[in-house]
Amino acid sequence: MTRADLQAFLETDRVRNFILGVIVFNAILLGLETSKQAMAQAGGLILALDALCLVIFVVELLAKILAYRGRFFRDGWNIFDFVIVAISLVPAAQGFSALRALRILRVLRVVSSAPRLRRVVEGFITALPGMASVFLLMALIFYIGSVIATKLFGLHFPEWFGTLARSAYSLFQIMTLESWSMGIVRPVMEVYPLAWLFFVPFIMITTFAVVNLLVGLIVNSMQDAHQEESNAETGAYRDDVSQRLSRIETQLAQVLEQRDRPGSGG
Amino acid sequence: MTRADLQAFLETDRVRNFILGVIVFNAILLGLETSKQAMAQAGGLILALDALCLVIFVVELLAKILAYRGRFFRDGWNIFDFVIVAISLVPAAQGFSALRALRILRVLRVVSSAPRLRRVVEGFITALPGMASVFLLMALIFYIGSVIATKLFGLHFPEWFGTLARSAYSLFQIMTLESWSMGIVRPVMEVYPLAWLFFVPFIMITTFAVVNLLVGLIVNSMQDAHQEESNAETGAYRDDVSQRLSRIETQLAQVLEQRDRPGSGG
Amino acid sequence: MTRADLQAFLETDRVRNFILGVIVFNAILLGLETSKQAMAQAGGLILALDALCLVIFVVELLAKILAYRGRFFRDGWNIFDFVIVAISLVPAAQGFSALRALRILRVLRVVSSAPRLRRVVEGFITALPGMASVFLLMALIFYIGSVIATKLFGLHFPEWFGTLARSAYSLFQIMTLESWSMGIVRPVMEVYPLAWLFFVPFIMITTFAVVNLLVGLIVNSMQDAHQEESNAETGAYRDDVSQRLSRIETQLAQVLEQRDRPGSGG
Amino acid sequence: MTRADLQAFLETDRVRNFILGVIVFNAILLGLETSKQAMAQAGGLILALDALCLVIFVVELLAKILAYRGRFFRDGWNIFDFVIVAISLVPAAQGFSALRALRILRVLRVVSSAPRLRRVVEGFITALPGMASVFLLMALIFYIGSVIATKLFGLHFPEWFGTLARSAYSLFQIMTLESWSMGIVRPVMEVYPLAWLFFVPFIMITTFAVVNLLVGLIVNSMQDAHQEESNAETGAYRDDVSQRLSRIETQLAQVLEQRDRPGSGG
Repeated sequence: MTRADLQAFLETDRVRNFILGVIVFNAILLGLETSKQAMAQAGGLILALDALCLVIFVVELLAKILAYRGRFFRDGWNIFDFVIVAISLVPAAQGFSALRALRILRVLRVVSSAPRLRRVVEGFITALPGMASVFLLMALIFYIGSVIATKLFGLHFPEWFGTLARSAYSLFQIMTLESWSMGIVRPVMEVYPLAWLFFVPFIMITTFAVVNLLVGLIVNSMQDAHQEESNAETGAYRDDVSQRLSRIETQLAQVLEQRDRPGSGG
Repeated sequence: MTRADLQAFLETDRVRNFILGVIVFNAILLGLETSKQAMAQAGGLILALDALCLVIFVVELLAKILAYRGRFFRDGWNIFDFVIVAISLVPAAQGFSALRALRILRVLRVVSSAPRLRRVVEGFITALPGMASVFLLMALIFYIGSVIATKLFGLHFPEWFGTLARSAYSLFQIMTLESWSMGIVRPVMEVYPLAWLFFVPFIMITTFAVVNLLVGLIVNSMQDAHQEESNAETGAYRDDVSQRLSRIETQLAQVLEQRDRPGSGG
Repeated sequence: MTRADLQAFLETDRVRNFILGVIVFNAILLGLETSKQAMAQAGGLILALDALCLVIFVVELLAKILAYRGRFFRDGWNIFDFVIVAISLVPAAQGFSALRALRILRVLRVVSSAPRLRRVVEGFITALPGMASVFLLMALIFYIGSVIATKLFGLHFPEWFGTLARSAYSLFQIMTLESWSMGIVRPVMEVYPLAWLFFVPFIMITTFAVVNLLVGLIVNSMQDAHQEESNAETGAYRDDVSQRLSRIETQLAQVLEQRDRPGSGG
Repeated sequence: MTRADLQAFLETDRVRNFILGVIVFNAILLGLETSKQAMAQAGGLILALDALCLVIFVVELLAKILAYRGRFFRDGWNIFDFVIVAISLVPAAQGFSALRALRILRVLRVVSSAPRLRRVVEGFITALPGMASVFLLMALIFYIGSVIATKLFGLHFPEWFGTLARSAYSLFQIMTLESWSMGIVRPVMEVYPLAWLFFVPFIMITTFAVVNLLVGLIVNSMQDAHQEESNAETGAYRDDVSQRLSRIETQLAQVLEQRDRPGSGG
């Protein structure tokens, strides 16, 4: 079997659907693993089938790497699959249970396997760079806010504003408007009555920034959608009109020219 | 009375308005049933009138089925009416009280009877398929998030993350930002200080996905509205210009042709 | 002084600005009335000045009614001013304190006096009819939801779902996502474990409806803005092109006609 | 060194990047100052480096003022830098600790130094005037709401509605929907059962106004984006068509004219 054959084989619908099936089946297995009852009754079987799924993924990845060599790692989605499978292979016996929980990320392979979901995620990702500046600004606001909050309120409210990290977390909570007043600002205001001078503008600025992010996203998507659809047609029409007008001008020039030639008119 | 007569009769304004009136009257009755005082004073009358309304609905449905036969079930709104009335006919004496409460759904028949409301709901429903991919992705994120949360936090917080279902519910609550920090994440962080590494990205990803849903909806509605209104006029204008240019070209060709004919010019 | 003179006088900038000044001054007075300290020191003066402001408003209104007669009540803003001033004249000595608090609504006369604010409010109001269907649908959903909630949960949670009105209020709170889970649904789920089957879809449907309202608003405003600005220019351009093409066609027809006349060509 | 040389020197990439580096370095220092551990180990060094950064900023500002003289204060961003550095120079030894915390605002100089961030902030600021009317209206609603709330609920709930300022803060919290019902309105309704008649409309009006602000922003940005991009191209095309049509008309006029000249045709 040549490499070209292997590539063709890996891209047949039957293989793709089989892999998609294994992913979904594996997702169900990983869900069952969270159920004590299911594990008590058929724990061994579930774990064995889970291992089998992992073996299939590893074999598929190796086959792909064999078939595509260097090109394999040029596709972001392949790297995505590779990392996700690699996480599952990290020795799980280390009692490093958080990493074990990450095995469920394998379910994300549904995304790389289903073209429609792939496009949605790609849409999300292409929207990110346009938001980079606003994100940077938000990071700045959060950093400044955290430093100020830590300095001003850290002493009396160490749980919320004791360190930069705690302040950043609390400010994130405040930005989401969760319990910002009854939970945080009112208690703070009992010690520092002017604390609202910091928190209310913080809420206004960050929510305004978030709204601007949203507006930017909408306007961008709109532009793209508008251009793609309408401009193709408009462009074709305009080119057509321009060409026709050129032809008419040329013809008219011919008419005028003939006329001016002495011998023509009579 | 032929079937055609029956159809015509059922579609007269008088019959339609009568049915709409019965629906509204029934809605008021069902509201009164929740009032202990009203039931104590006139419980028998209310229940009798309610039964009468139901009889009218059943007669109307039977008449419609008789009039339209097979075609009756081809219209989604008819099936909607049928199911709603059917729910009310399920033996209510079984102490199956939840189903009794569903009788109020009959009020939804207002929607199928009022064309304007019908259009709003149809608008909602046509918006759904465009959101299918994002919904699927959200379901995936929730499934993965639930498995991870159950594995990581299930042991110490069985009430919130003890099973997949509980985790999914808690994550839905967190996505709506309700008490996510003070109510859930701060207590969790007292046992697992790094829990924010899971919850904060979860909030960011899901709210970003929801925002994208929103943006997609806006852009789509915009497109539709834009195309419908503007393109008709633009298309007519463009067709007109194209036809006129064609005519001018033809005329010019004639001018040039005449000119080239030997006998013409002299 | 004739009625025309009175009208002209009432519409001079000096009178308008004087009234606007009285409104703002009155707003400050009404604010001061809430301060115990201010009332203790200068309560008599504040109340006297407030009465003076009211007298000025009454005189202005009477002058306007005298000047415009029947036409006065044809303008919505005049009726608005009239009602607001009338509220303040209701005998306040009745211990009917809530109505006294409504005197502050006089400050809203700033809106009817400042053209820019007037336009914003008019913009709000013109947006309402387009939302009527969705509002009606929301009212329906709330009514149905309230009846179901009262029937299912009223017995065990009389404070939240004891009557239709209480249920409607609680559902409004749930729609705004305030404490919906920790405050209401989790406690309810301890008695009725399947309560989420009612509340989660309720949240999804109502927020989706609100989002649709928003989208509809955006799309409508967009349309309006787009049409107003762009279509004037586009229309002028298109008319110009059409006229020019017509002229060219006419001229070409003349050329062809001349040519066909026997005597012309030779 | 002349003033022109100094200007050129200050605008070289090397100087700009150096200043940007100092700002970022200073930001890290100010972050470290919030850490007790870091201050215990290297407090002297951190404070010394911080002072050095401040000296560099002062020198840069003085150099800029020297180079640009009066023009320096005509650029908003320069004033921004000036004020921020000036805040840091206010004698910090006064125990006026809040002002010390504001030194972190120096980090905001990143914004004035990075053109992309500058543009985002300028975008924010240019969006503000378009929102002035709605903001004014919101201020009005808040003022009226505060007066009413203070008069009606101030007596029994002095902590929330005791003074105008407290009422305004509580209403802001209610507008953000934070704990509005469970935290504020339900307790108030236990004393004043009809309190929802004030709060529910207040929530509806303010959120509707916020939504309108959002819609206005989106529509404005859209307009701007649309005009800039599309109109340049459309304008060029339209001008081209108009010119060509003019030329064709002139040529046709010539053809017709020649024809009408007696000697021409024969």
